[in-house]
Amino acid sequence: MCNAVNARADSHPGVLVGLDIGGTKTAVTIANHQRAILSELVVPTQVASEAQFMESITAGINAALADNGRGPNDVLAIGAGVPGQVDPATGTVQHAVNLNLVEFPLGEALGGPYRAPVVVENDVRLAAVGVYDTLRQQAPLQHLAYVSVGTGIAAGLVLHGRLYRGANGMAGEIGHMLLEPDGERCACGARGCLETLVSGPAIARQAAPALRAAGFQPPYTAEHAFTAASAGVTAVQQVIQRVGRTLARAIQWLVMTYDVEKVVLGGGVTRAGTAFMEPVLSELSHLRTSSPLAESLLLPEKVQWWPAVVNAGTRGAILLAQEALAA
Amino acid sequence: MCNAVNARADSHPGVLVGLDIGGTKTAVTIANHQRAILSELVVPTQVASEAQFMESITAGINAALADNGRGPNDVLAIGAGVPGQVDPATGTVQHAVNLNLVEFPLGEALGGPYRAPVVVENDVRLAAVGVYDTLRQQAPLQHLAYVSVGTGIAAGLVLHGRLYRGANGMAGEIGHMLLEPDGERCACGARGCLETLVSGPAIARQAAPALRAAGFQPPYTAEHAFTAASAGVTAVQQVIQRVGRTLARAIQWLVMTYDVEKVVLGGGVTRAGTAFMEPVLSELSHLRTSSPLAESLLLPEKVQWWPAVVNAGTRGAILLAQEALAA
Repeated sequence: MCNAVNARADSHPGVLVGLDIGGTKTAVTIANHQRAILSELVVPTQVASEAQFMESITAGINAALADNGRGPNDVLAIGAGVPGQVDPATGTVQHAVNLNLVEFPLGEALGGPYRAPVVVENDVRLAAVGVYDTLRQQAPLQHLAYVSVGTGIAAGLVLHGRLYRGANGMAGEIGHMLLEPDGERCACGARGCLETLVSGPAIARQAAPALRAAGFQPPYTAEHAFTAASAGVTAVQQVIQRVGRTLARAIQWLVMTYDVEKVVLGGGVTRAGTAFMEPVLSELSHLRTSSPLAESLLLPEKVQWWPAVVNAGTRGAILLAQEALAA
Repeated sequence: MCNAVNARADSHPGVLVGLDIGGTKTAVTIANHQRAILSELVVPTQVASEAQFMESITAGINAALADNGRGPNDVLAIGAGVPGQVDPATGTVQHAVNLNLVEFPLGEALGGPYRAPVVVENDVRLAAVGVYDTLRQQAPLQHLAYVSVGTGIAAGLVLHGRLYRGANGMAGEIGHMLLEPDGERCACGARGCLETLVSGPAIARQAAPALRAAGFQPPYTAEHAFTAASAGVTAVQQVIQRVGRTLARAIQWLVMTYDVEKVVLGGGVTRAGTAFMEPVLSELSHLRTSSPLAESLLLPEKVQWWPAVVNAGTRGAILLAQEALAA
């Protein structure tokens, strides 16, 4: 499918390519050299092998280019986001479980065929950049945390208008803050990480007994839990409330550590919309009453929900592509 | 008292003044324009009134200048650290309880008499700058958190080699991370802040029953607690262990959020040395075994103790003074 979002003719043939690569699908955005979006396209991601993965990605890029009457030679730069650890200096992707990639030089693999500079970044960070770039059009903004709640929970940080990665590219990995010494086992191996309390699988696991009792069929997902909560299943509502309280506290911790102006919530689990946000906002409102300091730093407008229909990832990808071009 | 640390003659008469202003005493450091320290002096801080406060500070500066054969006209720039909130743009100090200052234009009050640029900064941040500057002489260093444990607990952050303040100058105020919804009341008004678990007064409060039982006389301090723990009072040792475990977790949270290369512990409570550090390091060592991720990010050399005899605050003050001069 192709949506020509901004199809005005552009005399400059060179284009920027933004990729938001996910485990099942990849969003390809084509923009002109000034970042005006020319078209957006979503293609399936093939993850059976590295070769099939690259074939699916380049097929998507080429189709998007053709939609705009362009070819591979017209690519000025590529920005790509992937769910996994990335060395931004080399563009090498590591431990991208959902892409079936253990260690893969994506920057090199993309840069070769298109003979263009490539920036590869972790998808949450890329979304943070995209969200930042969108919000700062509306009001001055320096520091932002974008919190993605999905299979895991992680934050992308923009400080002084720049992506902050930390010493090992691990800044914002709040999912592995150790909270409960005797808590549930996390995918990382430790016990009681924030991710074992707030994430899609964590919500499903905590709601499972109540979902079973209410007659839902396994396998249980966070989506089931939000559906059951909205349908009035009290025991599931309690789980959602507890998750919301924990997430609100994590937001307060981010605010006290980073003193960001905005905390934006996005990611798969937040698609539940109000059912997801209400318990979080309600607990934040409660925390505000706890002290003048909390009141001044947790202003209601500070925390906001990011609609999944607005792809912040590709926007961030286009921005990084432009930076790669300027560099 | 005056210690001529580096008394070599300096032909350039202009000097930088660094101030580490505390509630009972102020350390004044004089350095040449290249930051080589010429002398250090400690004078009492008078806090009965704003006028007496300023008199005690300027008397200290003038005495230090005279020790070096300099006068007020030789001051190139001043850097000052205070225990309180600071607007670095204006040099106005707010809510400096220990200095008895509610709102005071310290930058202006110092800049006038010495006709020199003044940088005023929160004392923990200034120490962070000083610690960073010291450690990066030894090895490349980009990102550091300096955690001060005293009457409260707060972190000063240096990211990409620059002090990071956040949107409201509140970055690193980890003392007010809300941890225990039904916990003890904090000075900020909220319940269960980190500061109610890890700080001098928090240690004294938690150890009080055991100190009383062991025959110690009130008022109880953290120092009493460390003394009793070292003397083998088991119930107090348990309090110290618990405080160490909580602080170790706070360090893990800082590492997971900021991905800093170093976490340095300083401040009044850390003067207890090994008695303070051992439970923290022991818990960090335990956390390292919890997952490969924790092992890779909590390397033993990452967390270190800062000896109180090395005044990081004045070193940071001199550095900021030099920056003010260059700006």
